[in-house]
Amino acid sequence: MPAPPEQFDAIAGTGSIMHKRLLCTPLFSVEHREFERSGHRPVILQVVVHPGAVVILPILADGRIVMIRNYRYTVERELWELPAGTLEPGETPLETGRRELEEETGYRAGVMTPLLEFYTSPGVLTERMHAFLATELTPVGQKLQDSERIQVELMEGEVVQGMLLRGDFMDGKTIAVLGLNFLRRAAETRNA
Amino acid sequence: MPAPPEQFDAIAGTGSIMHKRLLCTPLFSVEHREFERSGHRPVILQVVVHPGAVVILPILADGRIVMIRNYRYTVERELWELPAGTLEPGETPLETGRRELEEETGYRAGVMTPLLEFYTSPGVLTERMHAFLATELTPVGQKLQDSERIQVELMEGEVVQGMLLRGDFMDGKTIAVLGLNFLRRAAETRNA
Repeated sequence: MPAPPEQFDAIAGTGSIMHKRLLCTPLFSVEHREFERSGHRPVILQVVVHPGAVVILPILADGRIVMIRNYRYTVERELWELPAGTLEPGETPLETGRRELEEETGYRAGVMTPLLEFYTSPGVLTERMHAFLATELTPVGQKLQDSERIQVELMEGEVVQGMLLRGDFMDGKTIAVLGLNFLRRAAETRNA
Repeated sequence: MPAPPEQFDAIAGTGSIMHKRLLCTPLFSVEHREFERSGHRPVILQVVVHPGAVVILPILADGRIVMIRNYRYTVERELWELPAGTLEPGETPLETGRRELEEETGYRAGVMTPLLEFYTSPGVLTERMHAFLATELTPVGQKLQDSERIQVELMEGEVVQGMLLRGDFMDGKTIAVLGLNFLRRAAETRNA
């Protein structure tokens, strides 16, 4: 990957000249931030500050993928998703991933392998998503919170890929992680 | 795609029993919402309400992809991205896509083809992302806003796919749209 251009580097280290917390909720806060730039007006924006999250791609020994159907109150509909959850205070992404995989799907992972990291909506939200591949899975029982409405679905990889290609999935992190996983597998097959 | 389970359908139509706006900013608002569920405690959550956004995959006649390097104040770093932007009042996603493509990259699209739609972070944010493929591109000149720090990069498809596979991209929508595009092209090649 090419180095970032110099004029952006100079800004990147500056940080904001003013932070002000506007609102605090159990899951996120909102901050007003101002950034100085020489020769320009200051940049002023409101940012949703989020602790970060983890998404897990759990694959069983027979190749099936552990997916969930998750009712999302935020958008008032059910979405097909990979299991995921928010970092709790003091947790590493790996710990969050192991905990959420067990709680949401009832599977414990023998091996967790980092896949990629990305920002879910970097124009407005600081949320950084950490993706792991989970393998050597053992069933230990689902532990849902009272507010969670989640159904586990064990699905053949080919079925999942077909749904992805048709545009059936509407959760961004699920599309990103499944898409990259299938592309990497196809690249490995070509190179084998 | 299988039909959603009945117990979720019953909830999906209900809507929240209480909405209260906690904060309003130029780009988003924050609402407190409560949902009733028979036999359970009400579900209470805070939601970041967003007007929706558009991401564009612009492909030149020679196959090169028009990407941008975009300095994001929210996460205080530069990201490689596909051009994108937020719906303005009264705009359709198609209009937003054409406008943002011109403003950010300086290309006008002859053809815009819908690719997919998804939620960027449905646990916290209502943002729905509309993705379009833009082709038959004509250069008309970039029109950046004063706060935007964007550099256009014309990149070979193979280079972009290599960067994607290595995990070089950190913008969720860019990973989702590029991944699905490359997977669909690979599926078309196999079926041809």
